[in-house]
Amino acid sequence: MNKLLGVNDPSKQHLYDICIYNDYSALSNKISDLSSNKYAKICIVTDSNVADLHLDEVLNQLSSLDSFLYSFTFDAGEASKNFTTLNKLYEYLINNRFDRYDLLIALGGGVVGDLCGYCAASYLRGIDYIQVPTTLLSQVDSSVGGKTAIDFMQYKNMIGAFYMPKLVYINVNVLKTLDSAQFSSGMGEVIKHGLIRDKAYYQYIIDNKSDIALRRSESLIELIYGSVAIKSRVVEEDPTEKGIRAYLNFGHTIGHAIEKLSDYKLFHGECVALGMVSALYISHKLGNISEEEMNNAIELIKYFDLPVKLEDKLDPNLILNTTKSDKKMVGGKIKFVILNSIGEASTTLGVDNDMLLQAINYIL
Amino acid sequence: MNKLLGVNDPSKQHLYDICIYNDYSALSNKISDLSSNKYAKICIVTDSNVADLHLDEVLNQLSSLDSFLYSFTFDAGEASKNFTTLNKLYEYLINNRFDRYDLLIALGGGVVGDLCGYCAASYLRGIDYIQVPTTLLSQVDSSVGGKTAIDFMQYKNMIGAFYMPKLVYINVNVLKTLDSAQFSSGMGEVIKHGLIRDKAYYQYIIDNKSDIALRRSESLIELIYGSVAIKSRVVEEDPTEKGIRAYLNFGHTIGHAIEKLSDYKLFHGECVALGMVSALYISHKLGNISEEEMNNAIELIKYFDLPVKLEDKLDPNLILNTTKSDKKMVGGKIKFVILNSIGEASTTLGVDNDMLLQAINYIL
Repeated sequence: MNKLLGVNDPSKQHLYDICIYNDYSALSNKISDLSSNKYAKICIVTDSNVADLHLDEVLNQLSSLDSFLYSFTFDAGEASKNFTTLNKLYEYLINNRFDRYDLLIALGGGVVGDLCGYCAASYLRGIDYIQVPTTLLSQVDSSVGGKTAIDFMQYKNMIGAFYMPKLVYINVNVLKTLDSAQFSSGMGEVIKHGLIRDKAYYQYIIDNKSDIALRRSESLIELIYGSVAIKSRVVEEDPTEKGIRAYLNFGHTIGHAIEKLSDYKLFHGECVALGMVSALYISHKLGNISEEEMNNAIELIKYFDLPVKLEDKLDPNLILNTTKSDKKMVGGKIKFVILNSIGEASTTLGVDNDMLLQAINYIL
Repeated sequence: MNKLLGVNDPSKQHLYDICIYNDYSALSNKISDLSSNKYAKICIVTDSNVADLHLDEVLNQLSSLDSFLYSFTFDAGEASKNFTTLNKLYEYLINNRFDRYDLLIALGGGVVGDLCGYCAASYLRGIDYIQVPTTLLSQVDSSVGGKTAIDFMQYKNMIGAFYMPKLVYINVNVLKTLDSAQFSSGMGEVIKHGLIRDKAYYQYIIDNKSDIALRRSESLIELIYGSVAIKSRVVEEDPTEKGIRAYLNFGHTIGHAIEKLSDYKLFHGECVALGMVSALYISHKLGNISEEEMNNAIELIKYFDLPVKLEDKLDPNLILNTTKSDKKMVGGKIKFVILNSIGEASTTLGVDNDMLLQAINYIL
């Protein structure tokens, strides 16, 4: 059972496909279908962890294409998502004479996808790239929607572009060897998609949580398909984040602050989980969801081994100030994403410091 | 007499206006019209030469806006169009807490426009910017069409983006104090626009060459309007340079090689002029234009003090090899722009080394 989803732009023009498989056997055919002219050169961009696990297999699969194959591997980790790595990649492409008609493949998690995508967006003012995400988080989240970026100074994703991939190829089989903390991290975003946009999908997660936790292929394909469908519908309506795409930041406002204060030692999904608990608390305090709905959501988050309380002691005022120094502001005010109900989000500028502090204390 | 031209995307949606004035008095009103929410912060990006001449006047004009005004000035010259300057600008914006709803203004020539535009394209994945070009070259060429870039290693415009400004505001009066070599440099692109796309406009330049050379305001407004209209029509049809936009590279293939080999001591327009003479020669040799048409075009280029022979001795084979190492290649072959007739260009992959060498020798 494979799944295919088309992503369109706001005027309903087809942009790219997201396809979900059990292996990499269809990858070279999918690439052949992309362009009437074949790609003369293909560079796989990956990190040191993923290279060990999957690079040989992917190179092997691509050998049937009549293209020169290259690979660029950098040290795994968020610390590599910067201009130093990017400049090395530019240099590698220049030295190997990549031109605008060649292809990059991002093979890896979010860091690889963001960095490779931004390189594709900016090298010679833009060349084609495809996403081959290898973590649950990148499969359901960062590989979809064309957000690319690198970090700058102490700021995450400060420099980047909206630049769509030509294809997203998801192999769910790679998740079976994924570290459990990373799997949980992805589940944070999956639960978020249900909460902000689709009550039925949220219910599906609850009803199938055991099969999902056991990483059964059929359940993973359904789970990822549903999550990707939600995200891509949101992105379709709002490709450059002027409107509803902001809902995807549910849990991210306080989550990013915690992530930064933890010096990126906590996983992104763990921080988002904590941020979601805060945002659920605010949504409840505003009278939008019941205490039972809040608690059920928190239970689901816990079920997937995600934190709902912060273990390290952090000063709530420090979290508050870090939240406010983040970039998701409009005219100096924090744009905060809350739930109107389970399955429906909205944004508000009306969450004051006092309410934010209460919500932060709720997870301490 | 002012002129206004709307630029659209390929589906005919309005993208931005190009307006041509005699002064900066309409600038603040034009900016007010851009956004229903006013810009909280505006940063003028300029270089050390332009800052001395025009920064105070522009800041003064903008003081009527209810925005906080900032300015960032870097050392004039192509050598500044790199990551070092760009990173300083990012840092300046971060330190002054610019967000996605603020505005950048590129006040200057092509280097300022390219660098500021690329910063706008990439800062927080894109913020608004406007072009206020102050050289003839940037007024008729680089400010129109949303090509932004910086140089990388020894390569020009290697890293960049297609990112449209919200407005192009041209004050022709600033050209009266423009250095004559820079004025000539702009005329190279102006003549090019006529040659590749509009025989009537080309004839207008010939008929009014004396008034243009004297920089009479009325002639300059007509001249710039015509040139901008040609360029923006081309860009409208082909915003990301997949097709006819390549015609704008007429004279640039060999021109860029000469520019690089001169170590950027020759002006861009001078190199384009030499490249155009080579391309005119090839177009004539292919039987597309008569010897008289070729000579008339060369005479017009000379009239505006542009070179038609290279003064410095350069090895023709070195020029050839540098041309071939440039990035305008398709599958290893040079995509060369020639004229089918005066006013009509096309591209060909069929210009061989021998013909290229003849064309290079023609300007030596």
